[in-house]
Amino acid sequence: MKQKKINVKAPATVANLVCGFDILGMALYNPFDQIQLTLLDQPVIRITHTDGFGLPEEPENNVMGVALMAMLREIPGSIGFEVVCRKGIKPGSGIGSSAASAAGAVAGANKLLGNRFSLSDLIRFAMEGEKLASGARHADNVAPAIYGGITLIRSTSELDIIRIPAPELFVTIIHPQIEVKTSDARQILKTRIELKDAVIQWGNVAGLVAGLLSNDYGLISRSLKDVIVEPQRSILIPGFPEVKAAGLRAGALGGGISGSGPALFMMSSNADTANKVEQEARLIYKAMNLEVECYVSTVNPHGVTEESDDAIAIPDYSLSNKKDALL
Amino acid sequence: MKQKKINVKAPATVANLVCGFDILGMALYNPFDQIQLTLLDQPVIRITHTDGFGLPEEPENNVMGVALMAMLREIPGSIGFEVVCRKGIKPGSGIGSSAASAAGAVAGANKLLGNRFSLSDLIRFAMEGEKLASGARHADNVAPAIYGGITLIRSTSELDIIRIPAPELFVTIIHPQIEVKTSDARQILKTRIELKDAVIQWGNVAGLVAGLLSNDYGLISRSLKDVIVEPQRSILIPGFPEVKAAGLRAGALGGGISGSGPALFMMSSNADTANKVEQEARLIYKAMNLEVECYVSTVNPHGVTEESDDAIAIPDYSLSNKKDALL
Repeated sequence: MKQKKINVKAPATVANLVCGFDILGMALYNPFDQIQLTLLDQPVIRITHTDGFGLPEEPENNVMGVALMAMLREIPGSIGFEVVCRKGIKPGSGIGSSAASAAGAVAGANKLLGNRFSLSDLIRFAMEGEKLASGARHADNVAPAIYGGITLIRSTSELDIIRIPAPELFVTIIHPQIEVKTSDARQILKTRIELKDAVIQWGNVAGLVAGLLSNDYGLISRSLKDVIVEPQRSILIPGFPEVKAAGLRAGALGGGISGSGPALFMMSSNADTANKVEQEARLIYKAMNLEVECYVSTVNPHGVTEESDDAIAIPDYSLSNKKDALL
Repeated sequence: MKQKKINVKAPATVANLVCGFDILGMALYNPFDQIQLTLLDQPVIRITHTDGFGLPEEPENNVMGVALMAMLREIPGSIGFEVVCRKGIKPGSGIGSSAASAAGAVAGANKLLGNRFSLSDLIRFAMEGEKLASGARHADNVAPAIYGGITLIRSTSELDIIRIPAPELFVTIIHPQIEVKTSDARQILKTRIELKDAVIQWGNVAGLVAGLLSNDYGLISRSLKDVIVEPQRSILIPGFPEVKAAGLRAGALGGGISGSGPALFMMSSNADTANKVEQEARLIYKAMNLEVECYVSTVNPHGVTEESDDAIAIPDYSLSNKKDALL
């Protein structure tokens, strides 16, 4: 019998990875959205949110809705989806909340359609959700959400996504409870930059990619520097310099703004350091009397995964056979 | 008995590698400079060129001279060098002529001094030669000339050189016989660029490094694009678009301006293609009635090597033990 219903778990992601503005992204285990999709034999999309964030449920105003509509435009016949979503990733956090929902919806739908579409098709559809959420068809959250792991988006005009293998990394997400709109964070950026700064930046991008591929923590650490975006955007995030400095003192390899913020992230080579970074950050925001939510996670090589009913189980897919095993 | 005299071979290099402006460089086998150094017990540097290029021989006006002077400033005692150089790399070609001489001189001198200095010291000294030649202390030719292979210069302010392992690559150098001064080629560049172009560029830089490290010719080829420097500089090189297009049609992975030109280079995955690229380029420049010199070479993993007397022998060093084996 053909599968009519599916439950998926769609993970948070960190875009940019400090120096890789708009081209690098990384999937985490925590937090995540849970999405249930049911295949319908009518051309409708019905969306319900059970998470209390007050997100719009009309398909044309919902990131899952527009992503699924983009998919349905490429399928002949009378098909639709009933979608129930419980978001675990707060909207506006900077850890790919909209991307998780859009990626989870199209990945789940694709499984119900017998894996009709390729992963790069799914990214294309999910990017429509990003366009709705932020005004830009960027893939640095949806690509890692769908592929898992660390992904390079070499090009979005002609979509070219490359998986970047990496050594074990522990990621501390630090989310001060303030709002920074993606559109505002993009608007603050100067559209022109100094060539000499760009050279420093692509030296670091090259160093980071080489460090990840060659398991060189020292090189990764030296390369986690952003001379272009962070100086402009970090002023929107109270406590940013203090938290980053404390994280580095605690032994983190490096870190910065997650996506367009306000969440920060720090990467460490071991769990103890990642936990210590969290403690230091909590102390700083406590002293500032600002609420904060933190997560510690390794890099999630799976991306969106299927859940059995409502259970939260992470299947033991290896990265290499993920394309078949996933959804 | 302590070695008093040495003959070295210092290879041509290609800086930038299309998208990696100022951060990537690659050593070739051909052409090369030959340098003989003799250790003196007086604090003098005597330079003779036997190559007929009319280069200045006063140490303070010679790239080998200033590089050796920088080295001698860090050595106590009464030491000097007699230097005889036969350049095989034409000055002003864009394939690291000044870098080869400076790198060869300091690498040879270091051997005579019992490998007193590290490779990164040698790069630091040789960069003084680059400063004399072009006004900028850039390392994208001297680093591959000294390290061999393909090198990433992540940072020059705090020198950080990383070897980038690569699959077998065949390089066609095409040198139309016109002069483009490095200082002019640098001056033509706009000092400010669009952020959106920088994002495209560092996506390609990341793709190229990932492609080299994972032996992915397809990814290397897709990443060999330069949206920033090539559009500005290529107008200085007659025949550039025709030669590049013909090279790609012949099956090359990609290519562009070597350093600041006027030489072009194309990279191929096999010797037949690299030779075909040369033939196509010769036809184009013949039709333009412009003289051209061409070289086909694989990537040279050794950098500067010692020659036995005047023989041209390439020792069979492996990349991994090069640091000890070299000089």
